[in-house]
Amino acid sequence: MTADPADARARFRAGHRVPTAGWAPGYAQANLIAVPRDWAYDVLLFAQRNPKPCPVLDVTDPGSPRTALAGDADLRTDLPAYRVWLDGELADEPDEVTGYWRDDLVAFLIGCSFTFEAPLLAAGIDVRHISAGTNVPMYRTNRPCRPAGRLRGPMVVSMRPVPADRVADAVRISGRFPSVHGAPVHVGEPAALGIADLATPDFGDPVEIRPGEVPVFWACGVTPQAAITASRPPFAITHAPGHMFVTDVPDHTYAV
Amino acid sequence: MTADPADARARFRAGHRVPTAGWAPGYAQANLIAVPRDWAYDVLLFAQRNPKPCPVLDVTDPGSPRTALAGDADLRTDLPAYRVWLDGELADEPDEVTGYWRDDLVAFLIGCSFTFEAPLLAAGIDVRHISAGTNVPMYRTNRPCRPAGRLRGPMVVSMRPVPADRVADAVRISGRFPSVHGAPVHVGEPAALGIADLATPDFGDPVEIRPGEVPVFWACGVTPQAAITASRPPFAITHAPGHMFVTDVPDHTYAV
Repeated sequence: MTADPADARARFRAGHRVPTAGWAPGYAQANLIAVPRDWAYDVLLFAQRNPKPCPVLDVTDPGSPRTALAGDADLRTDLPAYRVWLDGELADEPDEVTGYWRDDLVAFLIGCSFTFEAPLLAAGIDVRHISAGTNVPMYRTNRPCRPAGRLRGPMVVSMRPVPADRVADAVRISGRFPSVHGAPVHVGEPAALGIADLATPDFGDPVEIRPGEVPVFWACGVTPQAAITASRPPFAITHAPGHMFVTDVPDHTYAV
Repeated sequence: MTADPADARARFRAGHRVPTAGWAPGYAQANLIAVPRDWAYDVLLFAQRNPKPCPVLDVTDPGSPRTALAGDADLRTDLPAYRVWLDGELADEPDEVTGYWRDDLVAFLIGCSFTFEAPLLAAGIDVRHISAGTNVPMYRTNRPCRPAGRLRGPMVVSMRPVPADRVADAVRISGRFPSVHGAPVHVGEPAALGIADLATPDFGDPVEIRPGEVPVFWACGVTPQAAITASRPPFAITHAPGHMFVTDVPDHTYAV
């Protein structure tokens, strides 16, 4: 790992394929979804109507791999892993997408809850997937997003186990970061979200839940990928879940 | 005036033409901009890139005059005054726009600072244009918005004089409402915003500034109208400045 976001991106660009939780602590991370210009309004409206899972941090100009979140970055190469989608089906999971890029692609950078993990750690709250060295567990829920144009789909959540007496602190700390998912959407009771078994996440890896800990669920920027599956746009590129774009933006920028 | 938002809309629908500050206190008010579907992405992206002046509360489906902010309302008739724009020029200021409406129009409802005026009044801070019974003064500034697609233009601000010892309270109170412009963008020093004379606002009416009061400036939802003038889309419908859409949404819904 490295503490420097540009160095992190350089390592990913060189082919290092790893989940990014814990990388460049103190810097915001972002989800990626890129679609043809013809679908960009639907994605932006879907995000506007579902701001909790889809808080938009930046939108690129058509065809450009540049983002205001990191001046020297190239969105086609600087994430550790990508997913390429054809008609809503996962077609490839490459390390870079230069060959797939198109002149009409508009990329959306969406806030990621990894951004408030450094403040959680600073408050003495263990972030289990970081201490375990695994990817964060993520789950499809039974909560439909508000549809927008041709896009619909369920909300996806990430889960972190939190000691019962620190749940209020985790709510308060993450709640200060509304543009990177903010406060949890659900605390405890996974069945009420339609999650049958925490040990089998839909994305990422399971984590241990210790005695006295409660599963806490945050809205997740993988939600657009669930919408791709449900709505079948002809083409899309996303990050691979947990393998985020590391920005140059300090996390305190998003604190309110 | 009336305290009931549906009654307010009924009176405006019947032809009552009046600025809406102070109407239905406790309910959010909204700016309107409707553009052809072909321009909707530019407007939504402009709003995403300029969230302080353009916080989006709702976006309608093409052609629909219905909004989630007030189930029984008709956006074509229920505002007290409208503006119709052709190629960036003001073409009409009618009381209703049924005859101008088009099947491809997408309407954006954008947060309005009138929403936090009730909390300001409740804190004992006089809102001058309400006590004077006039329209709020609004000014074009020298601050460019971040362009989006074909849209560009300067930020517009509203101004309220606040006693120097209550400025911090006004900041704190309005800051709790980020989706209706939130905290001020500028306090004092109008010349630094490019405002030469507070007595001659670009929109609305001037207000008295009493000794010991400071002019406080909030980002304003008339900003899209300045963008229409600068960017000249072929067609648009907006509210007339200060003549807002009164919603059924309690203002505390937007408090954080």
